[in-house]
Amino acid sequence: MSAERAKSDKALARTEAQRERILSAAQRCFIEQGFHAAGMARIAEAAGMSPGLIYRYFDNKAAIIRAIIARQLERLNQDISLHRPIDLAAEMTAKFVGGHGCDRNDLSPALLLELSAEATRDPEIHAVVRHFDQNLRDALVQWLMRGKHAGGHGLPEARAREAALLLQLLFEGMKVRQTRDPTLDPALLEASLRRFLPFVLAGGAPAPAG
Amino acid sequence: MSAERAKSDKALARTEAQRERILSAAQRCFIEQGFHAAGMARIAEAAGMSPGLIYRYFDNKAAIIRAIIARQLERLNQDISLHRPIDLAAEMTAKFVGGHGCDRNDLSPALLLELSAEATRDPEIHAVVRHFDQNLRDALVQWLMRGKHAGGHGLPEARAREAALLLQLLFEGMKVRQTRDPTLDPALLEASLRRFLPFVLAGGAPAPAG
Repeated sequence: MSAERAKSDKALARTEAQRERILSAAQRCFIEQGFHAAGMARIAEAAGMSPGLIYRYFDNKAAIIRAIIARQLERLNQDISLHRPIDLAAEMTAKFVGGHGCDRNDLSPALLLELSAEATRDPEIHAVVRHFDQNLRDALVQWLMRGKHAGGHGLPEARAREAALLLQLLFEGMKVRQTRDPTLDPALLEASLRRFLPFVLAGGAPAPAG
Repeated sequence: MSAERAKSDKALARTEAQRERILSAAQRCFIEQGFHAAGMARIAEAAGMSPGLIYRYFDNKAAIIRAIIARQLERLNQDISLHRPIDLAAEMTAKFVGGHGCDRNDLSPALLLELSAEATRDPEIHAVVRHFDQNLRDALVQWLMRGKHAGGHGLPEARAREAALLLQLLFEGMKVRQTRDPTLDPALLEASLRRFLPFVLAGGAPAPAG
């Protein structure tokens, strides 16, 4: 490797590290103060950098949000393409219990809801969440259609679309529960998911009698 | 009726009308500007009253939110106690299609999500939404347990609790969909609900084979 190339790799790595620092600081600020109250100056302060420096990496709060959601999307696509059977009820419950704050790669439930609300007013945020959602929905449909030998559920496309929407409603409903009722009994949640998810993953079945 | 009494009735009616005016104005402001940006002065302006006058009726924004949610709760309890069979998939779809803004008695989806996020930071709002949610959940459990002759579903209590939680997740998931994806195809939503709600309302059934 040439000295030039090594220098440029180092610069890239430093830029990446700075961006990471800002994104982590932004997530902390959004959780503590809410999306609207947290400004660029506060985020810079939390990241331990000058208000001027942060603008070298991100033009505004919307750009930070775009980067956070892009990172989420990458991770999501890795997760969902996993070709192994998963215990969805257990994974969703674990995510509920563990997900009240947020890790480095995840949106906090409160931030997700605030961004969703903001999507009704801000076209740029609307476009970002829509892009994310379409990716998520497509990945779910693919997963539900894939054969069982490949960790999927072998549903025909129309059934897969219905089931994917229902899963998305449940995922998003859990985000609302996390903010409004963080002490919800995880055993009740898991029992409820375990009872009903098999029908969803099987694409439904004839309606039970009665 | 004495002249005194008539006068006091009239004053009460006027107070009630003024409160209604403020609550409607507040909902419009919350929708247009978001919960955080809308202050008491703006709400007073939207209601066509002086900033001083509004404080005769409400101490602060939290008091307005309390009143909006209390009114919702009243209406909810009337709705859910209806002893008639309902087509839940159709009613949920109609609510999705018709509920992007809000009528006089309803929270807009965006406001509901912003309040949910704020509940993670503001103990007073947390208490208000918790009270509302417990009422909703209890009403759902009662409805699911009630006999079929009385418009219910005849579930035993444990099953009713699981099903009520799942319904709540779906209701709340729909609020998130409304803000993020207002153009979601209502036919897909209704087909999905129609396929899976029967299992929920029947308290589940043995898991399908496969």
